[in-house]
Amino acid sequence: MKLNILGCYSATPRKFTNPTAQVLEINNHQFLIDCGEGTQVQLRKQKIKFNRIKHIFISHLHGDHCFGLVGLISTMRLLTREADLHIYAPKGLKEVITLQMKLANSWTDYKLIFHELTSKESELIFEDEKVEVYTIPLDHRVYTNGFLFKEKEGDRKLDMNAVLNANIDVAYYRKLKQGFDVENNDGDIIKNKTVTKAPNKPKSYAFCSDTAYKEDIIPIIDRVDVLYHESTFLEQHAKLAPKTKHSTAKEAASIAKKANVGTLVLGHYSTRYGDLNVFKEEASEYFENVELADDGKVFEF
Amino acid sequence: MKLNILGCYSATPRKFTNPTAQVLEINNHQFLIDCGEGTQVQLRKQKIKFNRIKHIFISHLHGDHCFGLVGLISTMRLLTREADLHIYAPKGLKEVITLQMKLANSWTDYKLIFHELTSKESELIFEDEKVEVYTIPLDHRVYTNGFLFKEKEGDRKLDMNAVLNANIDVAYYRKLKQGFDVENNDGDIIKNKTVTKAPNKPKSYAFCSDTAYKEDIIPIIDRVDVLYHESTFLEQHAKLAPKTKHSTAKEAASIAKKANVGTLVLGHYSTRYGDLNVFKEEASEYFENVELADDGKVFEF
Repeated sequence: MKLNILGCYSATPRKFTNPTAQVLEINNHQFLIDCGEGTQVQLRKQKIKFNRIKHIFISHLHGDHCFGLVGLISTMRLLTREADLHIYAPKGLKEVITLQMKLANSWTDYKLIFHELTSKESELIFEDEKVEVYTIPLDHRVYTNGFLFKEKEGDRKLDMNAVLNANIDVAYYRKLKQGFDVENNDGDIIKNKTVTKAPNKPKSYAFCSDTAYKEDIIPIIDRVDVLYHESTFLEQHAKLAPKTKHSTAKEAASIAKKANVGTLVLGHYSTRYGDLNVFKEEASEYFENVELADDGKVFEF
Repeated sequence: MKLNILGCYSATPRKFTNPTAQVLEINNHQFLIDCGEGTQVQLRKQKIKFNRIKHIFISHLHGDHCFGLVGLISTMRLLTREADLHIYAPKGLKEVITLQMKLANSWTDYKLIFHELTSKESELIFEDEKVEVYTIPLDHRVYTNGFLFKEKEGDRKLDMNAVLNANIDVAYYRKLKQGFDVENNDGDIIKNKTVTKAPNKPKSYAFCSDTAYKEDIIPIIDRVDVLYHESTFLEQHAKLAPKTKHSTAKEAASIAKKANVGTLVLGHYSTRYGDLNVFKEEASEYFENVELADDGKVFEF
């Protein structure tokens, strides 16, 4: 599982900082999460192929999370994209994008499929053989969802030495991977656990930005491997957090601790603080495993 | 008169090239012309204060000329702007911008005044004591205007030595600047021309992008000091120009020559050509005074 941070600063794009966008690589997918202005240039800088992106998840309709989307969609068209593009976003974005395309008389040649989100409960919004994606309802000034990405439990792994010794026909390997006992060439029943090993532990990632401190999300993100939680402020500006519906680094750490997550990644920093390390210092007082997102940074988990 | 090129490449923002946006400084105004994605960052890079911009002119609603506008408007709000902002743009942009603000629940605290353009004839769209701005109807795939910025004829300048020698009361100086003859303290009529000099020659700038070769614009831009004319292609791709409603460098030069302009500035380059000098070389065969726009370049005229 790999997390490419394209932008992780709040409010507006600046000379050296970008608004929210990130690409999660999980099980051969490249999921784009949020798409602030300039995301397409950040994708180029990090050498991520536009065609690899098939699903885009937009948390909410504040500009620093979505103003780059219409440009990315247009560029994909110029690059003669053919693959479908799925966009999971609050209701309203479809209207904005289609209006802009209509006015530019520029329709995409590929299929643009909007999945408009309106529910205030967590819901499954994407599923294939290997991955599930759920919304995480957040508490912000407009309708906002975080997203939970979960690998499914994979197949059991064959212990090839044991399999060969047990004289099992290759036709049964699939059954073994699925966890069944099988009959070998000698007519004996072979117990699955004697010839297979447990699958890799499925990984999970939760993206939570933008949000005020909200304990309701804890059961949804319980024990995720990685939690990206916004920390717009430090405790010294704690008064601003509930007013603007953002969180402090301490609050992000508190959520991480209560949800027993593996690693907490901080982001969505206000640019009023000169040095990012102050966010890590504050959060580390309350939770052990804290990482700092920064534009261009790539995490492997 | 000063021209700041923020971006002058066609199609999409890339790592080192930006879509169309430029700031014309003329008679104490800073007019922003077009606003592709990333314009607000380019403004920061060129140290142009957002508050100095009071009028924005949008040529047409293709993304590379307007996708940066909603972000700029939002950032101006975050910077607690109070001054009115006037936007001159094809009908439709107002609907896009207000829809995006409605969905983000983010209204500007300053006054946002849209001047929706629909006319296919050149029209006066801005005027104050010192400057006039006219549209230049262009020929592109969607409704498009260029813009002609014209300083008005200024006051005549006092020749102070002559004025003092002529014994003219200071109360008459304003009349002299306006070109009138006046009576001096001795009761003599003083001919205006004997104590004043001609005003500075008013300057003019025409922005023409995007457009196919269109001779209809020649009378409108006749003898402008500076013409910015798009040159998306070279003659080697001349077939693409009418099809996409763009121009070649040769065509831009031909328009410049027929309109007897002072300087031709080329821009809106396709990124298929490695070196910009090829555009200058081609245009220079047909017109003498050719300059190349480039991102970050500042021209003083």
